[in-house]
Amino acid sequence: MSRQMILLTEGHSDPHTAKTACSVLRYRGEEVVAVLDSTRRGAPVSASLGVESPLTFIGSLEEAPRADTLLIGIAPPGGKIPVSWRPLILEAISRKMNIVSGLHDFLKDDCEFVEAARQHQVELVDVRSNTFREIARMVPLRRESIRILTVGHDCSVGKMVTAIETTRALERLGESASFIATGQTGIMVSGDGLPVDCIVSDFVSGAAEHLVAKHQHRDYLLIEGQGSLVHPSYSPVTLGLLHGSRPHGLIFCYEIGRETVTGVPHMKIPPLEQIMRLNEEIAGVLHPCRTIGIAVNGRRVDVERTWRECREAEDRFGIPACDVFRHGAAKLARAAQALRSDVLSDPIPAHPRED
Amino acid sequence: MSRQMILLTEGHSDPHTAKTACSVLRYRGEEVVAVLDSTRRGAPVSASLGVESPLTFIGSLEEAPRADTLLIGIAPPGGKIPVSWRPLILEAISRKMNIVSGLHDFLKDDCEFVEAARQHQVELVDVRSNTFREIARMVPLRRESIRILTVGHDCSVGKMVTAIETTRALERLGESASFIATGQTGIMVSGDGLPVDCIVSDFVSGAAEHLVAKHQHRDYLLIEGQGSLVHPSYSPVTLGLLHGSRPHGLIFCYEIGRETVTGVPHMKIPPLEQIMRLNEEIAGVLHPCRTIGIAVNGRRVDVERTWRECREAEDRFGIPACDVFRHGAAKLARAAQALRSDVLSDPIPAHPRED
Repeated sequence: MSRQMILLTEGHSDPHTAKTACSVLRYRGEEVVAVLDSTRRGAPVSASLGVESPLTFIGSLEEAPRADTLLIGIAPPGGKIPVSWRPLILEAISRKMNIVSGLHDFLKDDCEFVEAARQHQVELVDVRSNTFREIARMVPLRRESIRILTVGHDCSVGKMVTAIETTRALERLGESASFIATGQTGIMVSGDGLPVDCIVSDFVSGAAEHLVAKHQHRDYLLIEGQGSLVHPSYSPVTLGLLHGSRPHGLIFCYEIGRETVTGVPHMKIPPLEQIMRLNEEIAGVLHPCRTIGIAVNGRRVDVERTWRECREAEDRFGIPACDVFRHGAAKLARAAQALRSDVLSDPIPAHPRED
Repeated sequence: MSRQMILLTEGHSDPHTAKTACSVLRYRGEEVVAVLDSTRRGAPVSASLGVESPLTFIGSLEEAPRADTLLIGIAPPGGKIPVSWRPLILEAISRKMNIVSGLHDFLKDDCEFVEAARQHQVELVDVRSNTFREIARMVPLRRESIRILTVGHDCSVGKMVTAIETTRALERLGESASFIATGQTGIMVSGDGLPVDCIVSDFVSGAAEHLVAKHQHRDYLLIEGQGSLVHPSYSPVTLGLLHGSRPHGLIFCYEIGRETVTGVPHMKIPPLEQIMRLNEEIAGVLHPCRTIGIAVNGRRVDVERTWRECREAEDRFGIPACDVFRHGAAKLARAAQALRSDVLSDPIPAHPRED
């Protein structure tokens, strides 16, 4: 049963603030009936959000009467629902629409929303809400299921998109592959996953282990990375994924021109070689792991500059590099196949660290 | 206003399961009026718990009528309150005693305890409960305040005790030093701190940063470490402390004879050199950091074997090594003074990574 969604981006219809809306539109476009921003009513959605779409913005809920779901399409710093949106959300509830939110502030903690939802018998879905409480235990995992985690030099450089595009490229090659969502947008797109940044720190590795164990019947798991091992705010979440998912391979994502840490502008990002080696080394403590490819994000530069960067990255690191939006992820999918072939032909059954 | 505490260790009076009781008795002994274990009534507490104490076990609450607080003195795997203790806790509440617990299961989530506490006007203190929600931001910190974090090759190797003993040894040398608690037992002992393993993973580094910023008026901060960077379950918590507290120095703690990871017996602990280097390297991404001393835990071996291990560790790593229980922490305190002197005489004002 497919949803009929309105994406709410009221007053914030740009690719950065509305990145949740952009990804849902890109990967679940068939479920999106409208995008609501009364400040841009009638304008084409694709021009504002940078995603191909035939839709134009609507200015009120009644313009899309078939819709059964309102999805909060922004991820503002702090995670709070703008006060000015409250009447709109209450109106959606009274129109019997379910509400989906990935914000840190939960709909279900808001008495007014809860009471309205009860009255109109609709569902409030807080994608970030969870009660996960299991530690990682190094459970045995199927040898034939290859785990690949996207990592990066900073947050917001395309780790989710790279994992999704590589999954799709593997599927096009006839492989059995799953995208493993670990953040609110990824969960909205895939309909499964755990929001690892909202899990109590003792259990964040356990959440990653749970996800790879659950999907290990697939031959390739493309795990959505979070943050970066050198990000002063989010590195514990990154490490929880690196240790909990025990990847065989990493895809390293970086954005051309990004030189300082997001949110901490007085800190320079260390050299890419250092970050890459640190990721491999700390993942390697639990499981043999190597970087198999580079996802270059060229969103702030032109096509020619991106091509040049990819060629230089291939020379510099000796592994395939591409911009998954501009070039597709076929190179990364082939690197994943080569990794799986190496792992399966490896006569050593386990890591020397395990008995 | 000092508390008059009964420590509850009913049926579990051994140094491992009752490690919370042991530490409270060792470091807050002046507040402990009795230890309750009806299965050992009349026996000397020191023999069971391995902590010097003139007390003998009591068999019921009425044997210590002056007491105003009952402290749950065990940390069982899973963190649950044993069912058989419920009548005892309810009796303590009806005797107008406050209840202090460090378990994952909160007293305040238990309707029966909450109702009884309301009726008898006593306080339920869940040391692990918190609503901390701030990310780390690399806030400027006072240059003269030296931050030293205890790390180790595994969990439960003496990181809290080493931090406390080094703080006390510095105080004996006339220095201004604070122990910074990051776990439930440390918080019970110090009366301050944050339970970092219970904080949402996005905010665990923020909690560590908050604590060092709060206490930076002191010249030495001895930060209680948690888990280990190579522990598959708890490494994200360890990294949150390493990045959030931005230590100048590390004290590396290990136990003689420990070869496999606690809770994951099929995993061998990597070589100490590798773990030490990994800690320095990943801390060094944000702030210059070096290991200044080794805390050898010789609880399972004799005095002679411990002395030999410490001498060998000093040769192997080129830094001071001692067993803080057997030898005191004076060597570590002097290493901290040497570190502070180096940092303050360093003509380079900040890390090359910062602008």
